[in-house]
Amino acid sequence: MQIIITGGAGFLGQRLAKALLTSTLEFDELTLVDIVLPVNPIGDSRVSCYQSDLSEPDAAKKLITPETGIVFHLAAVVSSHAEKDFDLGWKVNLDTTRHLLEACRHQKPGIRFVFASSFAVYGGTLPAVVDDKMAVTPHSSYGVQKAIGELLVNDYTRKNMVDGRVLRLPTICVRPGRPNLAASSFVSSIIREPVNGEKAVCPVAPELPVLLSSPDTIIANILKGGTLDASVFGEWRTVNMPGICVTVQEMLDALERICGKETRDLVEFRPDPAIRVLVNSWPGAEDNTRALQLGFTVDTDFDQFITQYIAQHKA
Amino acid sequence: MQIIITGGAGFLGQRLAKALLTSTLEFDELTLVDIVLPVNPIGDSRVSCYQSDLSEPDAAKKLITPETGIVFHLAAVVSSHAEKDFDLGWKVNLDTTRHLLEACRHQKPGIRFVFASSFAVYGGTLPAVVDDKMAVTPHSSYGVQKAIGELLVNDYTRKNMVDGRVLRLPTICVRPGRPNLAASSFVSSIIREPVNGEKAVCPVAPELPVLLSSPDTIIANILKGGTLDASVFGEWRTVNMPGICVTVQEMLDALERICGKETRDLVEFRPDPAIRVLVNSWPGAEDNTRALQLGFTVDTDFDQFITQYIAQHKA
Repeated sequence: MQIIITGGAGFLGQRLAKALLTSTLEFDELTLVDIVLPVNPIGDSRVSCYQSDLSEPDAAKKLITPETGIVFHLAAVVSSHAEKDFDLGWKVNLDTTRHLLEACRHQKPGIRFVFASSFAVYGGTLPAVVDDKMAVTPHSSYGVQKAIGELLVNDYTRKNMVDGRVLRLPTICVRPGRPNLAASSFVSSIIREPVNGEKAVCPVAPELPVLLSSPDTIIANILKGGTLDASVFGEWRTVNMPGICVTVQEMLDALERICGKETRDLVEFRPDPAIRVLVNSWPGAEDNTRALQLGFTVDTDFDQFITQYIAQHKA
Repeated sequence: MQIIITGGAGFLGQRLAKALLTSTLEFDELTLVDIVLPVNPIGDSRVSCYQSDLSEPDAAKKLITPETGIVFHLAAVVSSHAEKDFDLGWKVNLDTTRHLLEACRHQKPGIRFVFASSFAVYGGTLPAVVDDKMAVTPHSSYGVQKAIGELLVNDYTRKNMVDGRVLRLPTICVRPGRPNLAASSFVSSIIREPVNGEKAVCPVAPELPVLLSSPDTIIANILKGGTLDASVFGEWRTVNMPGICVTVQEMLDALERICGKETRDLVEFRPDPAIRVLVNSWPGAEDNTRALQLGFTVDTDFDQFITQYIAQHKA
């Protein structure tokens, strides 16, 4: 059995690959594919790495084989990038998903297809707490593209062309590495940079609530999404992944508690209207009930996010 | 100013054309386009008719001009047809909408784009009454394709590429002519055929509630959707068109009241599981509040549907 991870060179793709390779799940081959050549994260002989632009019509056909058992489709153009480059966003975030679903359908019906969606599907005027019975009215092209992907995966699943699972991811914190073009990039920056002794800019107000998952928790949940029995999902395959709700102020308080005032003082507030518009339209809190009933997990408090990052990434 | 109607050869397209040509709205040209050549409904010199397959990549580019002011996008592959021919459904119901939006965006930003969506976007386990704040979980490919079109039109609108308006249409009753491949085709058949002295088959149970609009009302509402000021829609352009909720039994009671028992007895119940699955997943009643506030109208009782058909179509 072959497992495929799209976006396999990315942070989540590499972490998911490691988690799969060290899990008890049996498989023969793990294929990492991305627009840049992924690396084999732990030198395991089951891994093969490919550079491919999956938004091109025929690329997915070459990737999916009769041996494919699970596709984890993580590849995407992130929020601010899709907002700036409208055409690229549609090409990568919609067309790639369609090409992959078509390739699965024609290669072997019933391939497990795990689609990483996002809470960016929510937008506009929202209640204090969102759940997965609410209409999605995304206020970003990225959110619209993810919402469309959710619908596609559900329809291909209903027609038994794939065995789809749609996981709506909250913002991941703390992402290692450098800031990216996601509007939520600051959520990691305001912890990561100070912990590493660098200055960081916070483009939103301290009272903004954000909905977060730590990398360890989201990787466990993505893995769970790929291994749960199809029957547990019921008639709709889209599930809001559990997150915890904290304000930016609470994040900085935790940073000061764990790393001291000098570290916290490396964060400077400098409002950015473009970021604010995108981020303000996202939900600050969610009802985790359904996801927890299905067996997904949630972080307990924000201090853990910082200690997890320090333990895994600080030299 | 040019107005375009896609699906211009269809029942709604022809009715909308007549309504536009006899309205006080000022325009220079009305272009009817369809996969079959439309006719000029009342011989008005402002009308031009084209046969074109808008699902082909370049067809929309040739249609939209710098003079285009409003596009009424009614063309679609209907529900049971899209369910049977999966590829055709996506090609016509998704790709055409995308091509038209792209052509509008590049020809002249801000063209008014009226998209005919459908209550088929609802599906699965539904509350007794639906509203436009509810998540859509369509249980048909047609419903999924319409839900995706809604998202596309809203995003192109948010980016000021078009001035979109999404109207979710209830089932139209009584459609003249012959049965079509819509799962809801029986809703018109069980009135139209008996009124014309022919037998009809009802594939669903008499207690099934259906959500209906008469042709006169829906045409007035589509016209309203194309002429309302953009500001009234607020932050999301999708509106459930008002409908009335009646059961199949109530429809047949009205038929007997107006046309007599012999006419009503021309309807025979013969359950069709495929139709039942599709139709049972659609809502039976809706909250009309928002649409009525925006100025859309609703029928008063089902008897009117029958008398409207008799007045307009019975020889």
